[in-house]
Amino acid sequence: MEYNISDKMRSLKPSAIREIFKSLSDPTIISFAAGNPAPESFPTEAMAKISADIFSNEATTALQYGITEGYPALREDIKARLKNKFGIGRDFDNTIVVTGGQQGIELACKVLCNEGDTVLVENPSFIGALNAFRSNGVNTVGVPLEDDGINIEALEAAIKANPKAKLLYLIPTFQNPAGITTCETKRRAVYEIAKKNGLIILEDNPYGELRFAGEEIPTIKSFDEDGIVIYCSSFSKILSAGMRVGYICAPDGIVQKMVVAKQVEDVHTNVFFQMLCHRFITDYDLDEHIEGIRALYRKKCNLMLSTLDEELGGTIKFTRPEGGLFVWCTLPKGVDLSDYVKRALANKVAVVPGTAFNADTEAPSDSFRITYATPSEEQIVEGIKALKRSL
Amino acid sequence: MEYNISDKMRSLKPSAIREIFKSLSDPTIISFAAGNPAPESFPTEAMAKISADIFSNEATTALQYGITEGYPALREDIKARLKNKFGIGRDFDNTIVVTGGQQGIELACKVLCNEGDTVLVENPSFIGALNAFRSNGVNTVGVPLEDDGINIEALEAAIKANPKAKLLYLIPTFQNPAGITTCETKRRAVYEIAKKNGLIILEDNPYGELRFAGEEIPTIKSFDEDGIVIYCSSFSKILSAGMRVGYICAPDGIVQKMVVAKQVEDVHTNVFFQMLCHRFITDYDLDEHIEGIRALYRKKCNLMLSTLDEELGGTIKFTRPEGGLFVWCTLPKGVDLSDYVKRALANKVAVVPGTAFNADTEAPSDSFRITYATPSEEQIVEGIKALKRSL
Repeated sequence: MEYNISDKMRSLKPSAIREIFKSLSDPTIISFAAGNPAPESFPTEAMAKISADIFSNEATTALQYGITEGYPALREDIKARLKNKFGIGRDFDNTIVVTGGQQGIELACKVLCNEGDTVLVENPSFIGALNAFRSNGVNTVGVPLEDDGINIEALEAAIKANPKAKLLYLIPTFQNPAGITTCETKRRAVYEIAKKNGLIILEDNPYGELRFAGEEIPTIKSFDEDGIVIYCSSFSKILSAGMRVGYICAPDGIVQKMVVAKQVEDVHTNVFFQMLCHRFITDYDLDEHIEGIRALYRKKCNLMLSTLDEELGGTIKFTRPEGGLFVWCTLPKGVDLSDYVKRALANKVAVVPGTAFNADTEAPSDSFRITYATPSEEQIVEGIKALKRSL
Repeated sequence: MEYNISDKMRSLKPSAIREIFKSLSDPTIISFAAGNPAPESFPTEAMAKISADIFSNEATTALQYGITEGYPALREDIKARLKNKFGIGRDFDNTIVVTGGQQGIELACKVLCNEGDTVLVENPSFIGALNAFRSNGVNTVGVPLEDDGINIEALEAAIKANPKAKLLYLIPTFQNPAGITTCETKRRAVYEIAKKNGLIILEDNPYGELRFAGEEIPTIKSFDEDGIVIYCSSFSKILSAGMRVGYICAPDGIVQKMVVAKQVEDVHTNVFFQMLCHRFITDYDLDEHIEGIRALYRKKCNLMLSTLDEELGGTIKFTRPEGGLFVWCTLPKGVDLSDYVKRALANKVAVVPGTAFNADTEAPSDSFRITYATPSEEQIVEGIKALKRSL
């Protein structure tokens, strides 16, 4: 039977990454494709202990309905941490726990955009965000991403050309997919441009704590004296992705509407794991745990970059991330991306073609995304060699 | 600062129930207001054991990203259970795990309705569903609910009057808020009417397993030879509400779009608790566990009904549910609902005014919802006496 699917959902395709992820059941394929954190980064033992304790002492709270805003003690932890570590959170701000950063992105769009409105994004950008915007009937307009962040002139031109632009979506730190970090000068420029033009910035920072090289750069939200930035992050890359616990810090007028929107999406986020996050922050040393993850990714990223240098230096162009999970590779002129990705898969290595990350779904790409987070060191070396063979 | 909130979200208010729930921090107030299951219904000890085992043996799977459709073994459990116990699931159907039944309802609307479309609902109906429809810019049109289900003539008239009606949302078994169960004749009539008029039925059945009196009645989905019914249920009322694990069984063409819509809302449902549900179903006796819950509610409901008979028989009219969590009370003529609810709260008993459940937010009501699920036996008796004093 044919069903009348809503206009906003009709053209939306499943995420290419999720689809690739599903096809990775073949254990002989080296996956550089996933966006998953390294499983070694999960503090399993500590979580098991906390879990047993919650079941012994607070089971009713953990298993009963909770409030939409989130588990109160965890919200306090998040507020304190954002303040102390990132200078984030002013009197006009509030915090809500969401079911992974993905929900935060989707709610921000739902609350601020009508169908037919526009969200400006870095191009390339995170496919989950692009599709969240599209699922709200919103247009995505890409602005080129350069080595030090979004192209400022192109951003101003895009704002002029798109009077229905409501939101500017950015991943300023260790961008997905490009692994690029926006410099402070551009962050300040972007903030001023948004302020001048009445745009709300949605700053997505899921990888911000994963810096393993270079200097910290202030978040855009830390500049936010004017209440124009929605900050979104999560525990997915530092504790567990599967538990789906993220958070938003934004002006209260926006947060209150996000609470209403979240209430009708899932009532609230899994209470047990909210309590578990709170207990981990209280009883363990989250910063020390994160240091361990940084060391892990530093080593793996260095290995991937040095192998890329050896095997593909001068042929494939690639970014040199200072944190996060991803390296963005650009093929030499004349190599067709789609053919290349197929040859790579035949050579037992999976990558994500850049077309998946384009704001314009019909636009071509000559780039692809790879990750060092989940493959083993051996797989990193083997996989890069396979990428060379596929050229 | 004033923010430009989207049209669909601007007028949406937080759920009155959630707001009342938040105000219930006063421990001297007897709450008949919540929609929470009895905490005694959570199989805490078994869940603690399973949880320890998952952390020991399957931690990586439980804490890593999963697939949007849901944990495969749990989906198989759900399919088998729906088939064996409810005659639900044909070759054209598929199943998706959702973050509580609430998400299933919201996704069904998002996938099938454009802004300006209409969803027909029983009046009164579940506020979480009404607000989910409204958050998609969809109109809710109520059709009167009678003692044996929706008024069939009024339904046919509403379909004629609303050519943009796409969905018919029903809670045929132990309805929320009214506690009413639709008889089989009306279920079959509703199915035929929907089929004739090209309407999709969204059958919400969160309480279906909680029958403690009377005879089982087949679900509408069990009649579905034509692929026109979306069936939504969850583990919230039989295992834990706070974990947020629900499911949908619907024609594959609809499920596939729901998968895409879910992907951009929260990527997937908490993996750990999906695994926990699967393990509970595999290693324990879910039916026996449910029998215990039924006995619990049977006792509490009987006490509430007999106290209502004694204290308010002949003054307040009330439904006699055969399962579920709720009793629906109607005030005598001339008593103002809003004043009454305030007096009840002053007398330390909280109820939910019927206005919260109206499809038309401006419509009046002379009824209110009470629950026997969470108050103690002593509180049930005291609370009903307080309701009498408030008249």
